[in-house]
Amino acid sequence: MPVDRFAGVLAPVVTPFDSDLNPDAERLADHCRWLLCQGTNLAVFGTNSEANSLSVEEKIHLLDSLVEQGINPDSLMPGTGCCAMSDSVRLTRHAIELGCRGVLMLPPFYYKGVSDEGLYASYSEIIQRVAADELQIYLYHIPPIAQVPISAALVDRLVTQYPDTIAGIKDSSGDWQNTLTYLQGGWENFRVFCGSESFLLATMQHGGAGCISATANVNPGEIHRLWEAWQSAEAIGYQQQVDTVRSFFQEFPMIAALKATVAIFGNDPTWFRVRPPLTELSSEQRHQLTAGLQKCGFQMPGLSES
Amino acid sequence: MPVDRFAGVLAPVVTPFDSDLNPDAERLADHCRWLLCQGTNLAVFGTNSEANSLSVEEKIHLLDSLVEQGINPDSLMPGTGCCAMSDSVRLTRHAIELGCRGVLMLPPFYYKGVSDEGLYASYSEIIQRVAADELQIYLYHIPPIAQVPISAALVDRLVTQYPDTIAGIKDSSGDWQNTLTYLQGGWENFRVFCGSESFLLATMQHGGAGCISATANVNPGEIHRLWEAWQSAEAIGYQQQVDTVRSFFQEFPMIAALKATVAIFGNDPTWFRVRPPLTELSSEQRHQLTAGLQKCGFQMPGLSES
Repeated sequence: MPVDRFAGVLAPVVTPFDSDLNPDAERLADHCRWLLCQGTNLAVFGTNSEANSLSVEEKIHLLDSLVEQGINPDSLMPGTGCCAMSDSVRLTRHAIELGCRGVLMLPPFYYKGVSDEGLYASYSEIIQRVAADELQIYLYHIPPIAQVPISAALVDRLVTQYPDTIAGIKDSSGDWQNTLTYLQGGWENFRVFCGSESFLLATMQHGGAGCISATANVNPGEIHRLWEAWQSAEAIGYQQQVDTVRSFFQEFPMIAALKATVAIFGNDPTWFRVRPPLTELSSEQRHQLTAGLQKCGFQMPGLSES
Repeated sequence: MPVDRFAGVLAPVVTPFDSDLNPDAERLADHCRWLLCQGTNLAVFGTNSEANSLSVEEKIHLLDSLVEQGINPDSLMPGTGCCAMSDSVRLTRHAIELGCRGVLMLPPFYYKGVSDEGLYASYSEIIQRVAADELQIYLYHIPPIAQVPISAALVDRLVTQYPDTIAGIKDSSGDWQNTLTYLQGGWENFRVFCGSESFLLATMQHGGAGCISATANVNPGEIHRLWEAWQSAEAIGYQQQVDTVRSFFQEFPMIAALKATVAIFGNDPTWFRVRPPLTELSSEQRHQLTAGLQKCGFQMPGLSES
């Protein structure tokens, strides 16, 4: 039976750490449950999850724990693309065996200036080694950070060879022209997600599937409302509302600011913590964040009770 | 007893793969033995080793196997810097427990634009978690690939806090002015290695320790001769000789060309193989490489008998 591909809003779920900087699976599950209530699905182990500051073992443990704690794997699109093919295979296979509906896969990102031929071989080897009919891969294009782009020509080659497996792409380039290239690819049932809700209305108007956005960690309800109502008269207003929140968060180091927001609204200082090489917000930044959130009347309804 | 810090020439040893693309520990040990005979020490798991295309498990297995096969851990400076702190701690601890004389440590390289504060915290956490008096860390500055630089200010802070642990740095920036900054840091017994033998004579003349260079995989004898004789009248001529070989290899994708050279001189086609996302030399490139090596009379003495 073909897998129902993702659409809508997904949050690259931020990862809480305990005082010894180990990932905290219970708090992660709490945040996931709140996000699900707000209408988003769960792109755990994304860039904003500090996924690349976690080992494969830590990710496997967290994924197991989320499912054990009742998170429906049908809502999960874990990031499973690592530098090493062997790691990507192991983590992807585990995710699929757990029943995750798809995975978000970075290209191998250490070596720079690699060819499309080499990237094709990388994805192809992973697909063949995982060897699971259920495998649904969403490619992850984030050149500002990974520095290894996924060209439309590479997508085309992969979709042509693996039409049942290559399910879509997340475009975090911040370059609308690039997103358009994917949207106009003409690939059947191929799901294009923008990497920021700033492009959500435009993405939907051009046949896209939704967005996977950092700020969905803190503003999931409004982003989801925009996605649901993109064809309505209210859509432009909704877009402006989510843009305002996005712009505010972009004044801060994003990941630390998202976690600080969860800490503040959930009244749980554990959430301030990040793993090196990231750093927590300074006390001055925290103050600015709190004041700004109060000023614009920002809310995270029900977070503290979750 | 203080650890004797590295000096001289180290090869970032290329890693052979079997037909299933798994690392081949026996061939790796063979190549290590040949390199040791030529006077170099062994920076296994460097960039040119495709280390970041290997999982931590694969690296641990290879390291164990090298020592089991008789490679003296005193000759080993494995690369142990991963994206995830937990991986770096695990691999570094294992290397030190095996008796490796030092480790070469990349900064966490996924997140870009991180602060010196965050990088300091990263190295500091690793040092504290490994918690071994024998730990000797050589920092690894390779901004063209890692895209996360190690500033002289960061080195200074680390050396000041951990003078017995921070043993040196490899500078693969290709920027001589940057190397000079490290050389003029005034840190006691701090070992500066250039990342290319092109800078070896200059590095030694300014108080450096040696070089850790890709081409030491194929031209170790001549590079070692230059290092030994850097104060002699012949040094300039030796520098020119190694420069010629280096320039020749720089016309090709470096890692694939190094492996092809080992394959050709060792009469062992297994060595042509690379892991994705890298690609092997094309047949035309192989032909050019072979012809060029013949033309300049290049030799790898004793390789095929190793």
